[in-house]
Amino acid sequence: MNPKEWAEKIIEGDVRAASRLMRDIDDRMPWVSDVMKELYPHTGRAYIIGVTGSPGVGKSTLVDSLIEVFRKKGHSIGVVVIDPTSPFTGGAILGDRIRMQRHSTDSGVFIRSLATRGSMGGLSRSTSDILRVMDAMGKDIILLETVGVGQDEVDVVNTAHTSMIIMIPGLGDDIQAIKAGILEIGDIFVINKCEREGAERMEREIMMMLELGAKRKDGWVPKIVKTEAIKGKGIKELVEAIEEHRTFREDPEHKRKFLQKALRIELLNNLKDQISNRVLEVIGHEEGLTQAVNEIIDGKKDLYTKSEEILKQLLC
Amino acid sequence: MNPKEWAEKIIEGDVRAASRLMRDIDDRMPWVSDVMKELYPHTGRAYIIGVTGSPGVGKSTLVDSLIEVFRKKGHSIGVVVIDPTSPFTGGAILGDRIRMQRHSTDSGVFIRSLATRGSMGGLSRSTSDILRVMDAMGKDIILLETVGVGQDEVDVVNTAHTSMIIMIPGLGDDIQAIKAGILEIGDIFVINKCEREGAERMEREIMMMLELGAKRKDGWVPKIVKTEAIKGKGIKELVEAIEEHRTFREDPEHKRKFLQKALRIELLNNLKDQISNRVLEVIGHEEGLTQAVNEIIDGKKDLYTKSEEILKQLLC
Repeated sequence: MNPKEWAEKIIEGDVRAASRLMRDIDDRMPWVSDVMKELYPHTGRAYIIGVTGSPGVGKSTLVDSLIEVFRKKGHSIGVVVIDPTSPFTGGAILGDRIRMQRHSTDSGVFIRSLATRGSMGGLSRSTSDILRVMDAMGKDIILLETVGVGQDEVDVVNTAHTSMIIMIPGLGDDIQAIKAGILEIGDIFVINKCEREGAERMEREIMMMLELGAKRKDGWVPKIVKTEAIKGKGIKELVEAIEEHRTFREDPEHKRKFLQKALRIELLNNLKDQISNRVLEVIGHEEGLTQAVNEIIDGKKDLYTKSEEILKQLLC
Repeated sequence: MNPKEWAEKIIEGDVRAASRLMRDIDDRMPWVSDVMKELYPHTGRAYIIGVTGSPGVGKSTLVDSLIEVFRKKGHSIGVVVIDPTSPFTGGAILGDRIRMQRHSTDSGVFIRSLATRGSMGGLSRSTSDILRVMDAMGKDIILLETVGVGQDEVDVVNTAHTSMIIMIPGLGDDIQAIKAGILEIGDIFVINKCEREGAERMEREIMMMLELGAKRKDGWVPKIVKTEAIKGKGIKELVEAIEEHRTFREDPEHKRKFLQKALRIELLNNLKDQISNRVLEVIGHEEGLTQAVNEIIDGKKDLYTKSEEILKQLLC
């Protein structure tokens, strides 16, 4: 099959063709780029919802509840889970993701776990491309679950249309710093496990921070929603908040500004990733890299000089 | 002053010269590389200890306790704190770091907070360079505090000589996945806030995972230490575990293998970062980037074609 035929299959919603392409996106196969060019004109329709929060806050349970609600409304769903464990293990650990599996027999739900891999990064590019494939497949809503720490993940969160930040009461002082830092990307703040002590205090704190912080450029006033996802509590209110934000950002001016921000990040990450592959070629892959490192260890060259030498070979 | 003179000042331990260089490392000033070349032969002596864990586990309190113990032993200390909030705010939020400030009047302690910045990353390079500056200043021990999520941060953790993973009981199921994933980089596992319910169970779980997991290539059997850092409990045992690991890894073969791994990461990140700067030049910085993005939004070119065009200008 040529790139055009692959693209056609994916646009028709062929799960096997899409899965194969996604695997090859992960593996940085060169043919991917030609298929992506074909898919590009068929994208831009899906609504991407970011679900971001520290480990243990219940992201998967929330995603599971949202799938259920959106399915009942007749939407087709894509789910992309970015697994923070993967840099260490080389593969995603499923953990309590298993809960979500009850949707796996539903052909309207397509779930994909994404590993971060390789020392040259590339998470953002893979994720953007995979979101775009799901978009081309005709998924109405794509849920993007991530821990949201690290530049790569932040880039990813920034490409979501609605960003939810999930928190729970009683995670200690350090988390407050995160909250303050995360203000700028949160369209909706979810206090999950809200039956726990401290939920009201947390709500007041977030409100205070929102009031004290700089007004958002787009004029949106972030919502705060309390949930107890495991019991389905607050999910209705959460969905309403999402829909309210969606309506708000349908405004053409907001839409263009958002696209500018998202495409800027995506273009840079696409470049970064392609260049990384070229760097490895110039160095001579693993073997050449080992040799370069040994030269540095044996004191033949310092790190900075060696780096300059490689750059001279690579760049115009 | 020329690069050689800057380097000499830093090697003499001049705090102002070092601070200035570190700021310029952060800002990617071109002169930095020449000073780093001069410093390079004077590095390799400091012992780097990674302190990694989710927000709220008490990293800062532990670091504070370790500073106290190591100072009493007569060591000079450097502390590098990587702040996960910074991608959002553009600067470090100090939060409960203030506790550490009691050491700020001690000339034997040098504390530096590091922001992750810019959509093209660069955290790893900055951190490696800053660790190397502290090393050249003659710091005996450098404590590196980080959340440890995201490839960039994992790279950083991998350059520590002893890696401590900090956990607390009762952070939920998701954290279990992280623990399993983090096994491979933890030399010492610290269960902090060990007065909490579930500490013993957590200890058993970690032990079990260590037994079930693949044996480490270097032969080290990770230690588990329980602490209540806020009360100083378990700190003596923690320091003993660190010293035991340090003795273990003095073996020349281990040392070379470690250096190979660490320099490999550092070389790649140095390249990546320098290339990023060059990419921005080729695109035409902010203005050129905005123009490129608008071309994509207006449908003149798709993302993938535009990316290829830029690469052609950049690479040999």
